[in-house]
Amino acid sequence: MATNDKQPRKLCLIASKGSLDMAYPPLILANSARMTGIETHIFFTFWGLDIITKKKMNNLNVATVGNPSMHPWFHIPTWLGAIPGMSAAASWMMRKEIDKLDFPPVGEFVEMLVDAGAHIYGCKMSMDMMKLTKEDLVDGAEVLGAMEFMEISEGAQIIFV
Amino acid sequence: MATNDKQPRKLCLIASKGSLDMAYPPLILANSARMTGIETHIFFTFWGLDIITKKKMNNLNVATVGNPSMHPWFHIPTWLGAIPGMSAAASWMMRKEIDKLDFPPVGEFVEMLVDAGAHIYGCKMSMDMMKLTKEDLVDGAEVLGAMEFMEISEGAQIIFV
Amino acid sequence: MATNDKQPRKLCLIASKGSLDMAYPPLILANSARMTGIETHIFFTFWGLDIITKKKMNNLNVATVGNPSMHPWFHIPTWLGAIPGMSAAASWMMRKEIDKLDFPPVGEFVEMLVDAGAHIYGCKMSMDMMKLTKEDLVDGAEVLGAMEFMEISEGAQIIFV
Repeated sequence: MATNDKQPRKLCLIASKGSLDMAYPPLILANSARMTGIETHIFFTFWGLDIITKKKMNNLNVATVGNPSMHPWFHIPTWLGAIPGMSAAASWMMRKEIDKLDFPPVGEFVEMLVDAGAHIYGCKMSMDMMKLTKEDLVDGAEVLGAMEFMEISEGAQIIFV
Repeated sequence: MATNDKQPRKLCLIASKGSLDMAYPPLILANSARMTGIETHIFFTFWGLDIITKKKMNNLNVATVGNPSMHPWFHIPTWLGAIPGMSAAASWMMRKEIDKLDFPPVGEFVEMLVDAGAHIYGCKMSMDMMKLTKEDLVDGAEVLGAMEFMEISEGAQIIFV
Repeated sequence: MATNDKQPRKLCLIASKGSLDMAYPPLILANSARMTGIETHIFFTFWGLDIITKKKMNNLNVATVGNPSMHPWFHIPTWLGAIPGMSAAASWMMRKEIDKLDFPPVGEFVEMLVDAGAHIYGCKMSMDMMKLTKEDLVDGAEVLGAMEFMEISEGAQIIFV
């Protein structure tokens, strides 16, 4: 029957960035997916590992240099973005704005997703490169190789952030 | 019958960057999709909102810092990228190159896509964060939440830029 | 029969970044896909063209500015990232780490993927913009337009890096 052919929907997110602004898109998409009952997997790789690394997840920063969109929003001229302390100030402002939208800080958001049944993985290769072990990652995170990710993502919608 | 099971092809693009160079990939992909008759949706979120914000869409800049690929192409040494005015000069050069390829400027390109039947959305959450209303967006753009995006993207190929 | 409806799995990667750190994710994903027998296509566009350009592929750099994740890892304060030579030093360190993980340098990795049956394309439009011809690209690369990419990617999982 036609309904037998239809697989339940599955979403595989790859989070590869560790900046505050690019940490939120995979978390928000995963959250919406779980609220809609979609099977959800997030694979944290390269700089994205910071999002699930206990010592870093609550100290992510937004880039004030190399992001032309950032400056008009924060009324900062491009060249001023390179001044020490400017990135910290912009990150503080963004955290405040995110809080106003009722989204939790990164660490809390990740834990909420684990509780909501999202599967969270650290990329084995990136962890080796950055000398991280499973103990450095948030509780509930598994360690996964790229080959295993290919298996899990069969039939899934894949989003690389 | 087998043909009944096949859904028409659908493409959902998420545009999250507001730099000139990363504004074009989602627009070009959407354009190719529409020309092939594919149902096309573009969800503009975070810095990507600049692409459909009336006051910003025609003034996007390319980053000269934080983009190692940029420098050899424009023959600019990395450290010089931080000099005031350098980003504007590089953006001017890129606009000229894009024009030579017969692609329209960003604002015109977005309007062309709306006319071609692409669905254009501003991300509600990002709009709240940046204090934007529907009136700030290009004509034809709708406002959409992340949950609604999950519904629309069911069965679609999703591309996050 | 149900099995007739199921297409073999196909992966289409779009590589749009030319930095050393963002060159590896599409190559590693393509490699895992080929090792699992998945039909694999990589479309190199914008700065991603550097990855398959003979004169550039072995000289990719990592950005030390505009990447907040980079600094704690290399113990470099943000503002120091703008100092001339810092990007070269960080790139050298990353190449060493990648070598320890037994991944080949970028040029060799691309050739390995071609040998393994991955399809490699340079984006025609980007090549025109950067004044590149097929001779500038690594052996085995084809030149492809965005419209043709839409055809090839029908029924595929698409990953934009």
